[in-house]
Amino acid sequence: MSRPCRIAVDLLGAELPAADLLNGATDALKQHPNCELTFICDQRTLNESVSSSQRIIHCEHWVREQDTLREVLSERRTSSMHIGMHLLKEAAVDGFVSVGSTGALMALGRFLLHTPQGIDRPAVIKEFDGRQRSFWMLDLGANIVRKPSTLHQFARLGMAYASQVGKVKKPRVALLNIGIEERKGPALLRDAAEMLEQTRKLDFVGFVEPNRIFDDIADVVVTDGYAGNIALKSVEGTVNFIRDEFLNELAEDSDDDAAKLVRKSARKRFRRLMKKLDSQRHNGASFVGLNRVVVKSHNSTTEAGMTAAVDQAVREVELRVPDKIEKFFNKE
Amino acid sequence: MSRPCRIAVDLLGAELPAADLLNGATDALKQHPNCELTFICDQRTLNESVSSSQRIIHCEHWVREQDTLREVLSERRTSSMHIGMHLLKEAAVDGFVSVGSTGALMALGRFLLHTPQGIDRPAVIKEFDGRQRSFWMLDLGANIVRKPSTLHQFARLGMAYASQVGKVKKPRVALLNIGIEERKGPALLRDAAEMLEQTRKLDFVGFVEPNRIFDDIADVVVTDGYAGNIALKSVEGTVNFIRDEFLNELAEDSDDDAAKLVRKSARKRFRRLMKKLDSQRHNGASFVGLNRVVVKSHNSTTEAGMTAAVDQAVREVELRVPDKIEKFFNKE
Repeated sequence: MSRPCRIAVDLLGAELPAADLLNGATDALKQHPNCELTFICDQRTLNESVSSSQRIIHCEHWVREQDTLREVLSERRTSSMHIGMHLLKEAAVDGFVSVGSTGALMALGRFLLHTPQGIDRPAVIKEFDGRQRSFWMLDLGANIVRKPSTLHQFARLGMAYASQVGKVKKPRVALLNIGIEERKGPALLRDAAEMLEQTRKLDFVGFVEPNRIFDDIADVVVTDGYAGNIALKSVEGTVNFIRDEFLNELAEDSDDDAAKLVRKSARKRFRRLMKKLDSQRHNGASFVGLNRVVVKSHNSTTEAGMTAAVDQAVREVELRVPDKIEKFFNKE
Repeated sequence: MSRPCRIAVDLLGAELPAADLLNGATDALKQHPNCELTFICDQRTLNESVSSSQRIIHCEHWVREQDTLREVLSERRTSSMHIGMHLLKEAAVDGFVSVGSTGALMALGRFLLHTPQGIDRPAVIKEFDGRQRSFWMLDLGANIVRKPSTLHQFARLGMAYASQVGKVKKPRVALLNIGIEERKGPALLRDAAEMLEQTRKLDFVGFVEPNRIFDDIADVVVTDGYAGNIALKSVEGTVNFIRDEFLNELAEDSDDDAAKLVRKSARKRFRRLMKKLDSQRHNGASFVGLNRVVVKSHNSTTEAGMTAAVDQAVREVELRVPDKIEKFFNKE
């Protein structure tokens, strides 16, 4: 690409100071020197040397988790999220990373951007490492789903993402449920399963339980935003818990040389594995089903997490993900 | 206790052969020599030497996952689950362990046994290891909850269990949700939160996200059966995935002596931690809110898992858990 990839980064409302997250975001440029970042944050929280060397849009208002839909859409027009979404809508930037509320991003995205033909709502999608290969899970928390047709749309979005972006030839699609038998779980899931079974051109493999998602049963795991977010955060919590407990366990070692060697080597190997699974390094969760790149970052992200989220946005812009998803739906 | 503790074990419909699970269950007697087991299984699947040395009730029918409520309650009267529940109701045994469907156990339990004053439905509860101390989560899959008052009842059941069985003085109760802000998640949870806030004698600490349940925020985590089962199985799947990946990672070591030492020691330490978290060793999930001890075992349990489930049932009988829960509600 000769034209630089331009990303807007909304830092307002995050737990860490904006200056730290700005550093984290800027670290992503090492991998992507052709990228330009525009930060939306409260300039007063940065020192002058930072302010003068970066593109910054000063803003003091942000959408809060407790805001109602009406507040998000009409009363928070001066918020950092509105500014970022408008830059995106007017193509003044190519991608948008926000630490703001997932629900508000969803609502504003639907309001200001487009969804593909036949898709009412975007969903949050994430790639997970599995035993044999990666898989994708959606929706991870943007929607509270009430209609089976919404899950059906998510299945098609996931299929589009796995095939167009993940290069999976014929993605196997499963519905996340609390059992694999036909009658298990809420009626919503059973009705969605029936719709999916009747859909040609979609390889529906049935229900999958959360303890089997890593086992290469499906390439796309479809879930409502509630169960999806519960599953995502349960995985994250368990990874963090095991990491900390095992590193503690190793620290309790005696201090002779052999023990030190064990500790060092085991720690290295364990860290390598945990790095792969670490939610902070996998911080960016993408919206799929919008005509622009929107990446949601944890509000509690670390610097490294912010690097990962910006990296994720740049890669999606470079891969032209929204165009590819759109093309998939136009072809169908 | 001078009188033996009598446990009925329903093995029909499990994935492993009944003979193996029978061995697993019998292993629990090493810890509990004063316990008598009665197995409900298909005698034809055992060899004669086993049959003659054990108490066995022959049965060929079991409740299936896909059975409707009507089928469970009226058409499966000759099933292994009915036999076990009737033994329990008539006090011919003190506890019942079943590999059968959780939903069917719930339905039959409500139908044949009692719930405490003010409690409509029992719930599945499990103790988890946290960073500082244990916590309890319920309901883990017995109910699809539609009313906030049901979650309120689960909160009280969890509080009763943590205080009476777990000896927690003033249990902190939280609701599992996808965010901690007041407006997060389904209306069901927000309404339940409002009810819990207004309840005196209950220390409600608000919402907790699944990535924080290990962090000593609450002693009791209340959830509907759907999200609870999703969370439980996500934790289990992640534990299994990390265990296998790390043991693989260690196996890829080179073969000199130092490396062997590392591998052996790291493996030992890691296994010790994983043992603590292993779902098979934590296989038994108890029903709370019935006047008898009922323990649900994974249908895919191993021999060691069956040992754990029987052990769980014996300990609950010896601790007189149902009486203590009942007393808690009568005092209130």
